[in-house]
Amino acid sequence: MALGLTAVAWSPPALRPVVYLVGGMLLPLAALMLIPALVDVVLGSPDWKAFVISSAVTGGVGAVATYSARCRLVAGLTIRQAFVVTPMAWFAICLFGSLPLYFSDYGPLRDSFTNAFFEATSGITTTGSTVIVGLDQAPPGILLWRALLQWAGGIGIIATAIAILPALGVGGMQLFRTESSDRSEKVMPRVRQVAAAIGAIYIALTACCILAYWLAGMSAFDAIAHALTTISTAGYSTSDASLGNWDDPAIQWIAVTFMIAGAIPFVLYVRLLRRDIEIVRNSQVRTFIGFIAVVVAILSVWLVASERYAPADAVRHAAVNVVSVITTTGFATTDYMLWGNAAIGLFFCLTFIGGCTGSTTGGIKIFRFEVMATMLRTYFRHLIYPRGVFSRTYGGRALTDEVVVSVVVFFCLYFICYSALTVALMAFNLDFLTSASGAVTALSNVGPGLGPIIGPAGNFSSLPDGAKWLLSFGMLLGRLELFTVLMLFVPQFWRG
Amino acid sequence: MALGLTAVAWSPPALRPVVYLVGGMLLPLAALMLIPALVDVVLGSPDWKAFVISSAVTGGVGAVATYSARCRLVAGLTIRQAFVVTPMAWFAICLFGSLPLYFSDYGPLRDSFTNAFFEATSGITTTGSTVIVGLDQAPPGILLWRALLQWAGGIGIIATAIAILPALGVGGMQLFRTESSDRSEKVMPRVRQVAAAIGAIYIALTACCILAYWLAGMSAFDAIAHALTTISTAGYSTSDASLGNWDDPAIQWIAVTFMIAGAIPFVLYVRLLRRDIEIVRNSQVRTFIGFIAVVVAILSVWLVASERYAPADAVRHAAVNVVSVITTTGFATTDYMLWGNAAIGLFFCLTFIGGCTGSTTGGIKIFRFEVMATMLRTYFRHLIYPRGVFSRTYGGRALTDEVVVSVVVFFCLYFICYSALTVALMAFNLDFLTSASGAVTALSNVGPGLGPIIGPAGNFSSLPDGAKWLLSFGMLLGRLELFTVLMLFVPQFWRG
Repeated sequence: MALGLTAVAWSPPALRPVVYLVGGMLLPLAALMLIPALVDVVLGSPDWKAFVISSAVTGGVGAVATYSARCRLVAGLTIRQAFVVTPMAWFAICLFGSLPLYFSDYGPLRDSFTNAFFEATSGITTTGSTVIVGLDQAPPGILLWRALLQWAGGIGIIATAIAILPALGVGGMQLFRTESSDRSEKVMPRVRQVAAAIGAIYIALTACCILAYWLAGMSAFDAIAHALTTISTAGYSTSDASLGNWDDPAIQWIAVTFMIAGAIPFVLYVRLLRRDIEIVRNSQVRTFIGFIAVVVAILSVWLVASERYAPADAVRHAAVNVVSVITTTGFATTDYMLWGNAAIGLFFCLTFIGGCTGSTTGGIKIFRFEVMATMLRTYFRHLIYPRGVFSRTYGGRALTDEVVVSVVVFFCLYFICYSALTVALMAFNLDFLTSASGAVTALSNVGPGLGPIIGPAGNFSSLPDGAKWLLSFGMLLGRLELFTVLMLFVPQFWRG
Repeated sequence: MALGLTAVAWSPPALRPVVYLVGGMLLPLAALMLIPALVDVVLGSPDWKAFVISSAVTGGVGAVATYSARCRLVAGLTIRQAFVVTPMAWFAICLFGSLPLYFSDYGPLRDSFTNAFFEATSGITTTGSTVIVGLDQAPPGILLWRALLQWAGGIGIIATAIAILPALGVGGMQLFRTESSDRSEKVMPRVRQVAAAIGAIYIALTACCILAYWLAGMSAFDAIAHALTTISTAGYSTSDASLGNWDDPAIQWIAVTFMIAGAIPFVLYVRLLRRDIEIVRNSQVRTFIGFIAVVVAILSVWLVASERYAPADAVRHAAVNVVSVITTTGFATTDYMLWGNAAIGLFFCLTFIGGCTGSTTGGIKIFRFEVMATMLRTYFRHLIYPRGVFSRTYGGRALTDEVVVSVVVFFCLYFICYSALTVALMAFNLDFLTSASGAVTALSNVGPGLGPIIGPAGNFSSLPDGAKWLLSFGMLLGRLELFTVLMLFVPQFWRG
């Protein structure tokens, strides 16, 4: 995590440290596979073999890679190496993470590597789109592995967003460089220390969530599986009906609480532990909570006014589903496709938004909307007073042109990728709503799309294989904030 | 037109010159109404009265406004006044332009002011969406007035794009400021001279188009009506089947030719007359033509491969419909909704594009895509070499940060307006495809949307009134390049 990136740009992309680091990440993945193996052994499921074999393969490849490419990363990575290692590591984990699913005895995944890879990628990227029909009868090891993938993906993206993306300066993430943020530097001088604290908080929040679900009446297994996918705002469930299977206000409000908890910048929890209450003052957090409150209020009124629910149920259904989509989790309590076209339009737009940066959420993210709003304000002012000079600030820091351009370019690129993915999906003869909502749900790592096929009551299993590969690519693209993946397709990047 | 804008920003918005100029624009509109009046008298249609009355009302209001607010615009307009006068003038022309339709004896328009206003706005903004079913039997005066509105709107937007938008510096239009473009200054020192030359070229191209249609076999009336809406890339037809009513390759290729002619920057024709062949070297024109060629080729191959048409017909149908949508005209030869989901996705994306700036087309426009591509290239380079300094150029001129930001902000605002309009339409319980395609077809001034309701074989008549007002607003918003309209909603703009 503590990669001291150097700006030596012109060195040829030396792949040795890349192989070393990617291999190194396969080792904990291999260890993680032993947990569902153990559970399968205890519960008498035959899939334990699939997990043991996959663990051996993953661990073996990881060991060979780290050993053969062993090197000391004293000087850190170059920017080029960091650009290569990030998508490669995520791709490798998707690939090896899919092995237990493919080697398992479970029909939907065993029979199609596409399905296994889609499911693993949707897991690691904390998306939550699934190809499995019949989750309620699925083997426990598979269910646990899906949840563990999402949980690992959640902490993985926090680490990536804190340690790597700000250094690469993609999509305005340079705003969160700790070197230049004097306040956070005082609080926590070393990256490694922050990483350890964040890991501890992540585990503690998960434990609280497990306990809460269990106390509210879930079985221990379901409580663990859902806690792992709630705090990571990821959304895999152990039931086809998702949270609708537990039609219990307590359970669903617990889900709302921990989805929001997972969507807050984790670094703010670290500061809270040090008695720094930035978390209640932070502009991104306030905008995020305020926006959720407004949307839930409007939708609740609409649900009551259109006589669909009694007030308490309306607020609950609105809260769970809205929070689920905004935090890019993807749980559902009911098929909101039945709430009318206005609600469908609302959910479609919410799919783009996402939570705070440095959290487990995907999407465009709140701080980019804030920067965009600030820049639109100064832009309009500039049109009225062409010779005026306007300073832009964000979170008390000056918004440089570089950051503004980064953010705005990110927006544009997001819409370009979204459009391209939509058209590509339509080329597989999928209808417009399925294609458009599938494209954005993948890019934003939300989970369900809209429409009868991939909507909250539907499933990705019937899509053609090509569409599943496209969507898997979209999930990784969105998860790594576009630039980190797209850079690999820039010819100049590879030129010596 | 030759408004010498001054940058005196802090004067209170003195509305006197605004009223004077808007009133002044109603006078030629009143005169224009006498043409269909005359045609109706000659052909014995009772609607001549509607045109005469509307002409009297429009002329009367225009005369009172100009007389009571008479002033000398020696010092030109302030930027604030220009921001007010532009949308106000366009709105006034839509409003008064709808009077003959509302006063007429023609059922669909007489019975609903919403319909009359929608039809007039769709005309003036050169959009081409219609609420009329049964065009083939519609009275001649109405058909001619629709065509004249579009023709006037076409020359109106060229004037706005050349004289006003560059001075206001919205959406990157400052790239086309003639003061700073030394080349065009040499060619044509005075704005008034350019305006006269462009007017003459517009009339000459229209005459050529009329002649071509007529020689190819259209009746004189149809030839005139279609020529007026072809060169203005606007798309009103005299038949419900649009150009599909003339299933004649000659007529349809003539349409392709003049739609493209209307989508080229008109200032390049002026330079061509002075033996300056910039028109064949211009980057925007080359990208535009090249893009059309590629898209038509791909679609033709697809139409042949999917056994829908023989090669010659495939190329023709692809060319007319693709050129019609890219140039934001909106003619159709057939219901391309039947060409499969891939084609629907393609047409959806094409609806955003638009032609060259300074032409009669709407949409985002080619130069903005070029600027965006240039900026993405340097952005990625910057990510690889964070300390590198990269110069960006466009059309031989340096691309300043100001222009780049303007263009990128325009893109973002376009998508924001598009999303907001889509959701607002869905609130009227319209389905997703109808709402999304309706939103973009209005913003881009194309005409037909997608889907069974407003698609190329459909019509806007069955939409609820609220949706029609929203779409009318969207047409004006898109036509005036967003900022000019949105500025009126910025509170700071109105503060003294």
